[in-house]
Amino acid sequence: MSCDHIGIGLIGFGTVGSGVWNTLQKNGSLITKRTGTGSLQIRKITVRDLDKKREGNAPAELFNTDWTETVHDPSVDLVIELIGGKSVAFDLISAALIAGKPVVTGNKALLAERGAELFALSKKHNTPIHFEAAVAGGIPIIKAVQDSLVGNRIKSLVGIINGTSNYILERMTVAGLSYLEALTEAKDLGYAEADETLDVNGWDAAHKAILLASLSHGFLIDPAEVYVRGIEKVRPIDIRFAKELGYVIKLLSIVRENKDGSIELRTQPSFIPASHILAHVNGVFNAISVDTDAAGEGLFYGRGAGQDPTASSVVADLVEASRLMAQPGPHRGFLPYEEKGSIQPINDTSTAYYVRFDVTDRPGVIAEISQMLADAGIGISGTHSPVNPDNPDADFVDLVFQLHTAPFGLLRDTLAVIEKLDCINDRPTVFRIEQLATS
Amino acid sequence: MSCDHIGIGLIGFGTVGSGVWNTLQKNGSLITKRTGTGSLQIRKITVRDLDKKREGNAPAELFNTDWTETVHDPSVDLVIELIGGKSVAFDLISAALIAGKPVVTGNKALLAERGAELFALSKKHNTPIHFEAAVAGGIPIIKAVQDSLVGNRIKSLVGIINGTSNYILERMTVAGLSYLEALTEAKDLGYAEADETLDVNGWDAAHKAILLASLSHGFLIDPAEVYVRGIEKVRPIDIRFAKELGYVIKLLSIVRENKDGSIELRTQPSFIPASHILAHVNGVFNAISVDTDAAGEGLFYGRGAGQDPTASSVVADLVEASRLMAQPGPHRGFLPYEEKGSIQPINDTSTAYYVRFDVTDRPGVIAEISQMLADAGIGISGTHSPVNPDNPDADFVDLVFQLHTAPFGLLRDTLAVIEKLDCINDRPTVFRIEQLATS
Repeated sequence: MSCDHIGIGLIGFGTVGSGVWNTLQKNGSLITKRTGTGSLQIRKITVRDLDKKREGNAPAELFNTDWTETVHDPSVDLVIELIGGKSVAFDLISAALIAGKPVVTGNKALLAERGAELFALSKKHNTPIHFEAAVAGGIPIIKAVQDSLVGNRIKSLVGIINGTSNYILERMTVAGLSYLEALTEAKDLGYAEADETLDVNGWDAAHKAILLASLSHGFLIDPAEVYVRGIEKVRPIDIRFAKELGYVIKLLSIVRENKDGSIELRTQPSFIPASHILAHVNGVFNAISVDTDAAGEGLFYGRGAGQDPTASSVVADLVEASRLMAQPGPHRGFLPYEEKGSIQPINDTSTAYYVRFDVTDRPGVIAEISQMLADAGIGISGTHSPVNPDNPDADFVDLVFQLHTAPFGLLRDTLAVIEKLDCINDRPTVFRIEQLATS
Repeated sequence: MSCDHIGIGLIGFGTVGSGVWNTLQKNGSLITKRTGTGSLQIRKITVRDLDKKREGNAPAELFNTDWTETVHDPSVDLVIELIGGKSVAFDLISAALIAGKPVVTGNKALLAERGAELFALSKKHNTPIHFEAAVAGGIPIIKAVQDSLVGNRIKSLVGIINGTSNYILERMTVAGLSYLEALTEAKDLGYAEADETLDVNGWDAAHKAILLASLSHGFLIDPAEVYVRGIEKVRPIDIRFAKELGYVIKLLSIVRENKDGSIELRTQPSFIPASHILAHVNGVFNAISVDTDAAGEGLFYGRGAGQDPTASSVVADLVEASRLMAQPGPHRGFLPYEEKGSIQPINDTSTAYYVRFDVTDRPGVIAEISQMLADAGIGISGTHSPVNPDNPDADFVDLVFQLHTAPFGLLRDTLAVIEKLDCINDRPTVFRIEQLATS
């Protein structure tokens, strides 16, 4: 590394990778003026297929198909990993760290699932991993939590951090689409990947929440301990009920510190008050509401994905990495600082609930279910059973119970008994009704 | 400086100063774990009056009344300035920089008005000034603009960055209070200083906007070039008209880059659409909406003032400063990177407008004013002259014109002629109607 230039190896030249190239082309000299450091030069680019037609003006001689060539090139001082996945990406990040080359990545799944190995390597080789691009695209939430809130206990983070799910839920709410119609629309518009699985099953958001929890509380988290539900089972009738009751349904990721120090960490579609600021986060936008002991309540809002927003975060990390390289010293990236921590078992977490039963309509159903809930000590704040406008004489009806705050495990056990009643036709649908701070 | 501890000199132990003490007491060991650096130790505290009763448990032997004692103490590695004002604060910050001791300050007025001298010293002595606490309390907007958005052209920043004004306007809007009633309430609740001048005349917000503009565009700004109006002249009738027309009035600070590279930089009470997210920023909260070429639209929201939020930002700067001290190298704080830039003359800035005339009610008034506006080429989108509910038979009435987008200078010149009409009883009241991005 010379002082005048930072050599970059870029592995992956898809949407975000070419966005990084474009941003450095467009704003490179502005960045150099602002930082007073050397220019950021992409010197090697690894792709899967050299013959693929690409946008942008990256010279052909930069490209190769072998990441080892890029990582070990002596003119490459730091490595950007943007290929995704958990095997090749793991290998190349490991190789870069071992070679003492800082890594910039947006790979949330890899860091959430194999962070223990990677951060151990990062520590051993005193070489940081930068991952602003891994959470919420262009929103600088990693730096906010890690640096700006360093003097705070992070009491809670509540985020809408998957734009695809948020878009689908919005379209179901605003346009009355079914889940599948909204998904198809999202794919047509390029808001959902060809394989939408990780977006809609909640795991993309959960991976991000795991990273935010580790940053906030210092310990690495086993994804197996985390409760995750996606939006695939949200039905128009739930959207409609939510609206009638003054709520909207959002895929929420919650990281909350309990009084006993355990961390509540879960991702699921939840009812939130229609008046809450998070209810107004629409389309592919992301937002994270933060509550801390000193700074108090805050909100970070912006574009959660896409070429340029994510490239913006990669470039911020590049600048940070290059500055740290110019000033050798103690490790400045994230490292776990607690040996272990405790994730609260999901059965112990408590909220209010919306439960929708698919019942055979006969007298006594509400009384029967109510009695069983009462026997379990679960309070009812309301029941609703509107006529189905599409089929007013249906025998099967939707019966909704709004329940007071109760432990999730107790509710689960109680519902397991209730669903054996012969008037119940299907497993009940449960959404949490979240108590959110009024900001 | 030993590697194990960072010695801090704290000058000023009012609300924020004691907040910093408390935060370090409460979360000091957490900070050390997170950062892996030495502990942050306050070793000297300078106050005006040693005998004043203070909250907190700072030992008496730390206190003195002479800042030179604190700045030049060999056990003090860096200096926090929290006394405010522009003379003693200037002297002590200068002395610290000359001594090579990094400075953390929340003094927006000083940096906005004497930044040229201070940043020159900062550069000369390769010693940074950190000022996250100077803008928007607990919201990490300085770091966001300086670091997270380093790869972006900052197209615009639109902020509600004075909590006192925002509280007063909210109370006028929600509770129908007069300006003076709302101001009195704000003082009673401790939301306004005994001397509220800088808060309500717009200069507190303008100082912050000047700093944001310098960070975004790299050049220092002469406050004399900046257009600033406060909220003192907002009347209940304007609040009411705004509501009827679908707007709310907010004290807005705007930093916007024009196509020719000049910067529009102004602070004034403005009409914004009631549906815009900034319209929902209430009470003492602050928010800054940011638009950039890569990250796109974003919003940062949180507590804009107060003991703990501001202390949170001071502590973040302390950590940043102490890390940089451990890794000597090139200057890492803000330095201007453009020799000069251009602030767009306020007369050249264009928006739509609300203009309220105090007129003597007689036939022909609307026609006369309309004709003069038409002669000037200023379009009218509506006129309103409701009956005064308190005095339906009044001869003097309020006549409101909504005007299409026009240069401010043209409007000013035209109004200067209109106000000479004998039916006009007072200088017209003008508010801008802002076109804000839909986020």
